[in-house]
Amino acid sequence: MNEATIELSTNAAARREADAPHSLVAEFAAPLTLESGQSLSGLRIAYQTYGTLNAEKSNAILVCHALTGDQHVANVSPVTGKPGWWTTMVGPGKPIDTDRFFIICSNVLGGCMGTTGPASTNPATGEPYGLDLPLVTIRDMVDAQAMLIDHLGIESLFCVAGGSMGGMQVLQWAARHPDRVFCALPIATAHKHSAQNIAFHEVGRQAITADPDWRQGRYLVEGSTPRKGLAVARMAAHITYLSEPALQTKFGRNLQDRDARTFGFDADFQIESYLRHQGASFVERFDANSYLYVTRAMDYFDLAADGTLAGAFQGTKTRFCVVSFTSDWLFPTEGSRQVVHALNAAAANVSFVEIATDKGHDAFLLEVPELFATTKGFLDSAAKVRGL
Amino acid sequence: MNEATIELSTNAAARREADAPHSLVAEFAAPLTLESGQSLSGLRIAYQTYGTLNAEKSNAILVCHALTGDQHVANVSPVTGKPGWWTTMVGPGKPIDTDRFFIICSNVLGGCMGTTGPASTNPATGEPYGLDLPLVTIRDMVDAQAMLIDHLGIESLFCVAGGSMGGMQVLQWAARHPDRVFCALPIATAHKHSAQNIAFHEVGRQAITADPDWRQGRYLVEGSTPRKGLAVARMAAHITYLSEPALQTKFGRNLQDRDARTFGFDADFQIESYLRHQGASFVERFDANSYLYVTRAMDYFDLAADGTLAGAFQGTKTRFCVVSFTSDWLFPTEGSRQVVHALNAAAANVSFVEIATDKGHDAFLLEVPELFATTKGFLDSAAKVRGL
Repeated sequence: MNEATIELSTNAAARREADAPHSLVAEFAAPLTLESGQSLSGLRIAYQTYGTLNAEKSNAILVCHALTGDQHVANVSPVTGKPGWWTTMVGPGKPIDTDRFFIICSNVLGGCMGTTGPASTNPATGEPYGLDLPLVTIRDMVDAQAMLIDHLGIESLFCVAGGSMGGMQVLQWAARHPDRVFCALPIATAHKHSAQNIAFHEVGRQAITADPDWRQGRYLVEGSTPRKGLAVARMAAHITYLSEPALQTKFGRNLQDRDARTFGFDADFQIESYLRHQGASFVERFDANSYLYVTRAMDYFDLAADGTLAGAFQGTKTRFCVVSFTSDWLFPTEGSRQVVHALNAAAANVSFVEIATDKGHDAFLLEVPELFATTKGFLDSAAKVRGL
Repeated sequence: MNEATIELSTNAAARREADAPHSLVAEFAAPLTLESGQSLSGLRIAYQTYGTLNAEKSNAILVCHALTGDQHVANVSPVTGKPGWWTTMVGPGKPIDTDRFFIICSNVLGGCMGTTGPASTNPATGEPYGLDLPLVTIRDMVDAQAMLIDHLGIESLFCVAGGSMGGMQVLQWAARHPDRVFCALPIATAHKHSAQNIAFHEVGRQAITADPDWRQGRYLVEGSTPRKGLAVARMAAHITYLSEPALQTKFGRNLQDRDARTFGFDADFQIESYLRHQGASFVERFDANSYLYVTRAMDYFDLAADGTLAGAFQGTKTRFCVVSFTSDWLFPTEGSRQVVHALNAAAANVSFVEIATDKGHDAFLLEVPELFATTKGFLDSAAKVRGL
């Protein structure tokens, strides 16, 4: 454990006031045993915090990010210069209220924003891991987060919250550390990845590994970047984050900066231009091998693999609020309903809200008043029960 | 006009008995003026026929194929060695009955199975066209088919039938040549391509053009093949042809030839292996530039672009049977409903059936008894009206 990082973390609020762009980093001497059985040494976890941890250390909320998210929940990202990805939900007076709660978000294991991932240096070789990094799972991500929470001296989290892959981590936390999670907020997620979702991930991985600049995963060592492959992967995935009605409303068949079709392969349609932009900008901020690792972690996720889902939550005292969105076809309501049924079967305290919106899967990141009302109500009442 | 091909076409039934694998080819001296305004000379159309044209030439059914289909509707494909793509629907005693009707199917303009497309020789250079082929549209495909129908001496088609992009051609035929189409059978289609569908096509095109072996479209001249890019395009598209429930039922999270996850990037899951196979086998039978052209033709399709959809069908005497499938999310029922509403507004004779199935968009190619009953009933009654 690095004492310097502890110092930084307790001074986090002060640092944030200067809009400090750099993440806090915790380093761990003890190896992490992964779900695969392999051992990972020299673990580093990059994270951000917001708000102040109370004296009882009972007001901490762990926010878990999605596939391409990062620890920059509510501060300007030092990489993109854009606002954090969950400023709709996290901030002063927001549902996840930085005036009341101490919010932690760490870059996931396998990520590319400071936490150990395939772009990190392999201590055994002094070069980037690339594909030599052992595969990691959602459980491994959660185990790494638990090491961070230990490091911060927090015994029990008030809440674990997140959407999409973040929601998978929420469910995994509740199943694996039931005594350390007072309440859980899994949004737009599922307890296992579907065949269709594995299929979309596989397309993305094939696009990346088809790029000759990927160099069998050794592009960092060999000085190339599989930009085109990663952009295609992002474009395919991005379609799944939106809904057909939203695409229709936002783009329809509108042409891009022209009066008529050009009878060629330029981006005639706004939707094409939009997708190309999504692909190109993603390449600037994300590592291709990380994309392979983190999608694989999602594919592997199945909380019921070793039995029943209800069994995974048996005896839990955690309070749950499960949220889904009507137009989310990547993580449809049916998946959330399965989680709710299992929690009911495990006699858990669970509420469930399906929010009507045409914003698709990305709704959890967007301005959706019913999401804010639901989560604020849930957190406020849970906080009251916990005496916060 | 090539007399030899006329001879062949009238002898088609005899040739078919020998299971002749090669397509008939019609060549046209007169140039085709394309929707773009450009002119295309030296047009060749490869086609197949089944059954016998009656003396009145009133029993002809034009079958229009989908994006990656071809003219081999009901004979073994000489390229793949597999049965034709619509043997469920076309054959003796089948809904499109080769004992009663004379069935024609031509490879679309822009295709790669013998009709002029980007892999054809550009007469101006003696080399494959590549991207020098002018862009073609669904209207251009239909105009080329009309030249073939003229060539066969057929004034009026009994029926034009097809699914997906084939259905687009059906609608285009009915709108452009109302007096030449007695009845029309558009299946699993729409009168315009949606933003989401343009988006998926754009992903496929980006995957192809990202492949360095694509060589700016000159791969045939330069002796390479953009296999990886085309495979990724196919994989992404293939997901859209199936339904989530069907994927769940067929594959779920089943592992491929192994007892446990390998914690790597091999095809652990059956769905991955299946998709990889789809990509790899597609590359053996399809031309990458054709994929660019034909997807673009679909993107450009919008029968209401110049006014209302009802206006496009005003005064039509064609009898329509519109068919959609409940689990088709590529061409959802809503699109068929819009066509039906427009046909109603145009006072057309139209029936509409939404068939309950979990087979997704590909249902039109599969064993769906309700599809057979619907189309057989429609064609039988229309044939009676026409005195066949």
